[in-house]
Amino acid sequence: MENQNVFNFSAGPAILPQEVFKKSAEAVLNFNNSGLSILEISHRSKDFVAVLDEAVANVKTLLNLNDDYAVLFLTGGASSQFYMTAMNLLGENQTASYLDTGAWSKKSIKEAQSFGNVEIVASSKDKNYSYIPKGYEVAKDSQYLHLTSNNTIFGTQIHDFPEVEMPIVCDMSSDIFSRRLPIEKFGIIYAGAQKNMGPAGTTLVIVRKDLLGKIERNIPTMLDYRTHIDKNSSFNTPPVFPIFVSNLTMKWVLENGGLEGMEKRNAEKAALLYAEIDRNPLFKGVAATEDRSLMNVTFVLNDDSLNEEFMSLATAAKCSGIKGHRSVGGFRASIYNAMPLAGIKALISAMQDLEAKHA
Amino acid sequence: MENQNVFNFSAGPAILPQEVFKKSAEAVLNFNNSGLSILEISHRSKDFVAVLDEAVANVKTLLNLNDDYAVLFLTGGASSQFYMTAMNLLGENQTASYLDTGAWSKKSIKEAQSFGNVEIVASSKDKNYSYIPKGYEVAKDSQYLHLTSNNTIFGTQIHDFPEVEMPIVCDMSSDIFSRRLPIEKFGIIYAGAQKNMGPAGTTLVIVRKDLLGKIERNIPTMLDYRTHIDKNSSFNTPPVFPIFVSNLTMKWVLENGGLEGMEKRNAEKAALLYAEIDRNPLFKGVAATEDRSLMNVTFVLNDDSLNEEFMSLATAAKCSGIKGHRSVGGFRASIYNAMPLAGIKALISAMQDLEAKHA
Repeated sequence: MENQNVFNFSAGPAILPQEVFKKSAEAVLNFNNSGLSILEISHRSKDFVAVLDEAVANVKTLLNLNDDYAVLFLTGGASSQFYMTAMNLLGENQTASYLDTGAWSKKSIKEAQSFGNVEIVASSKDKNYSYIPKGYEVAKDSQYLHLTSNNTIFGTQIHDFPEVEMPIVCDMSSDIFSRRLPIEKFGIIYAGAQKNMGPAGTTLVIVRKDLLGKIERNIPTMLDYRTHIDKNSSFNTPPVFPIFVSNLTMKWVLENGGLEGMEKRNAEKAALLYAEIDRNPLFKGVAATEDRSLMNVTFVLNDDSLNEEFMSLATAAKCSGIKGHRSVGGFRASIYNAMPLAGIKALISAMQDLEAKHA
Repeated sequence: MENQNVFNFSAGPAILPQEVFKKSAEAVLNFNNSGLSILEISHRSKDFVAVLDEAVANVKTLLNLNDDYAVLFLTGGASSQFYMTAMNLLGENQTASYLDTGAWSKKSIKEAQSFGNVEIVASSKDKNYSYIPKGYEVAKDSQYLHLTSNNTIFGTQIHDFPEVEMPIVCDMSSDIFSRRLPIEKFGIIYAGAQKNMGPAGTTLVIVRKDLLGKIERNIPTMLDYRTHIDKNSSFNTPPVFPIFVSNLTMKWVLENGGLEGMEKRNAEKAALLYAEIDRNPLFKGVAATEDRSLMNVTFVLNDDSLNEEFMSLATAAKCSGIKGHRSVGGFRASIYNAMPLAGIKALISAMQDLEAKHA
């Protein structure tokens, strides 16, 4: 396959670096010159244990984690973390605080409500989640504040994490490894792999270990974070290949400037695309300007009747996956770490082609 | 890579057909000629929905399932099914019955005990799980009888599923799709993919739908089988690639005679290997003859001091992964569906080489 036949703007599973695909395909045929496929090797083999250890080390390097934090590769997606975080941290008579910034926040709130008291500190539901609420109060005795750092559907992103007294528990599925983080603010960070980290099939969970074991609840073995910390994510068979590919992607991030490099690239790419949305008289952005996501760019045509024509132009420009989510409409360009500048330029040129025809 | 450089006798993750590796590697580079990798496509794309639908249809065809059963591709391994089965089927004041045939049975018993009363109908612990108990009584009011159909570690297998009044819930992780089944006896069948079905990263769950929704318990959304039945395993992002590879493996099974073909091949392969174990004066089998597994062949050398020499001969014969589990010792040859007859012959020839040297 030629490099980048198609620019994949899908929200997730999503684009990964071309060299990651190439190395992954090689390992499916012959892993580490063992004559065996990565798909058939034991998760307890020396070669895979080395991959897992390296993946953990790469997460620690990228996020600058000290030994207070454990790094886990689990399964079940962020959807499983919605209940696991509360199940492990929130006692029956305790309170946890949640910021409601969209569909995923709502799901995390719903699951937490089975385990304790949930305080919703603020919501942007009044404007179809097009902004990030700020200046809210958080109950002093709250166990944690739960945030969704980037809202894939609505195209908003938290650019400044609040100063609060309790640890922040954060769903970073769609912007993990896209920028530097004030890591000391976080108690748990979780992320489904299938946007910036790897293919679908593994979930990164970073836990501050001192937060665990403080509540009384009978937790099934597999749902207790301590099980997986004790066994280095290998209490049972971990998702070998998704972890392998995630590790390749992290190596690519490290080789391309780490999170500082990603942050710079991502800011440049997003600035170019938002500038065109703001300049081009046919388009407008969906999210409040100050809360615009650098990962998922949501925009609409002022004249809906041009939607189909624009989709055709985008397809002709090899841009795929730009249809907006049904709860927002219009378009969404997901421009994760691996989206090259050339993809942004291709999309902008499709936007300008439409403008030329309808100026 | 040449075909079958190495015969992989690992217990799991385990050998899959060579053509499955080849097609998987192709899809990692370019899936369905889309110009996109299978690792980056949306789980809601037409092409992947077709894969998932085909995978479900293939399970139904292979096991001859009618519409009373739902077929799910989840994550979390059999270890997650240990608690999910009880969480979904066993009320707090109800009883479920368990047959204890080894390490995995024990774990399933432990997890179920948090949800209701557990009756252990019989155990083979007295002889280090080297046989399958038979002729046990099951409490009449039991909600289900839980069995482990094949005990990967100890090399025993249930050859005749008991006639009981309640549905059987069965962990078939290590022998799913290896033989025909009296499907009407089962309420739930679950299997981690990473032996006979595919790579690590997805878990097959087959549920008789009328068993669900009968108990009162607050179940997190992701842990309620009905969530995944309603959304055809796509309530959240499913493990796209592990499902894709599992489907390729199922197609290979269908093209090679279906379960009848596998059953015949597996019986032939196991018969050859057990015949050599019984004939060769240096070796002896571990499991009771009538309960010998056709999937995991456990055997020891009468003289332990020859272990290392035999390992060297096996390695020279390109047989990898035959070291026995620490709780049994000796050797274990896992000869799943994809192990070719040539692998069995290579292992037998290593056994005969050892005999020739020490006759």
